[in-house]
Amino acid sequence: MAMSMYQASIPQFVKMLTNLSNILKKGEAFAKEKNIDGAVLVNDRLAPDMFPLSKQVQIACDQVKNGMARLAGIEPPKFDDHESTFEQLQERVAKTIAFAKTITPAQLEDSETKEIKFSIKEWSFEFVGDQYLLTWIIPNFYFHITTAYNILRHNGVEVGKSDYLGG
Amino acid sequence: MAMSMYQASIPQFVKMLTNLSNILKKGEAFAKEKNIDGAVLVNDRLAPDMFPLSKQVQIACDQVKNGMARLAGIEPPKFDDHESTFEQLQERVAKTIAFAKTITPAQLEDSETKEIKFSIKEWSFEFVGDQYLLTWIIPNFYFHITTAYNILRHNGVEVGKSDYLGG
Repeated sequence: MAMSMYQASIPQFVKMLTNLSNILKKGEAFAKEKNIDGAVLVNDRLAPDMFPLSKQVQIACDQVKNGMARLAGIEPPKFDDHESTFEQLQERVAKTIAFAKTITPAQLEDSETKEIKFSIKEWSFEFVGDQYLLTWIIPNFYFHITTAYNILRHNGVEVGKSDYLGG
Repeated sequence: MAMSMYQASIPQFVKMLTNLSNILKKGEAFAKEKNIDGAVLVNDRLAPDMFPLSKQVQIACDQVKNGMARLAGIEPPKFDDHESTFEQLQERVAKTIAFAKTITPAQLEDSETKEIKFSIKEWSFEFVGDQYLLTWIIPNFYFHITTAYNILRHNGVEVGKSDYLGG
């Protein structure tokens, strides 16, 4: 007995993206309540050379969309990185959840031994499937969800650990 | 074929704790270079009601120490939460890595179906082993490592994604 690649990924990613959506809702409500333009929060960052909230959400989504598509051996949908409002970020998260839900356990069968190759700018990466999930997709996914949470929390939005972990 | 509970946890936790140690070293070096008392960073936080860096590191360590001990069915070592310097945080991380390395694949065999029960303050939790790892230990572990990183990054420490992900 052990865990399948599907079990170790899709259900928890869908849950965390749903939690992210709820955290973003709290951010949007906070901005409305304080009469702040939501874009102030969407464009905020923890350091001048870090990505803003919008990009944190985009990358968290793309870890799931592109990463799981690679493991499933299918073409991921293309999403433009145009989001500049809470409403648009919600759409991005919703589209990503919808795509993740189309991936089946059968598509991920034996993906733990699949050879994964990709490049980002000038860097090339090579992984075996299970290492790609465990040492790339998962740590990156949680990094960007947590950083999105931290940006809002740092701005005073009342989110807590239970919003992050979900019910 | 699938992933074992051991594969999905210990090697990556050891790697990430090693990365955390390297991130903390950069924090310590930054404080020295700027002639800042290291305790200023160790006690800093992203919001007044969030935990400081020291506690983020302690909790990240405890996810591995207590969480993996529960799954392995062994008693975890007890560490006092007394750390107030970078040096002490490094010791905490090193002790956690050393403990994690004592856990064997055999001890985690069939832990995916183990019943896990524990309580934190007034809240009681119940999980099946694989869900405990995937929906509790892993998201909590990455949350606290990322928040430790974000606290230092927010203070100007030059850490980047490659420090977080490791080589």
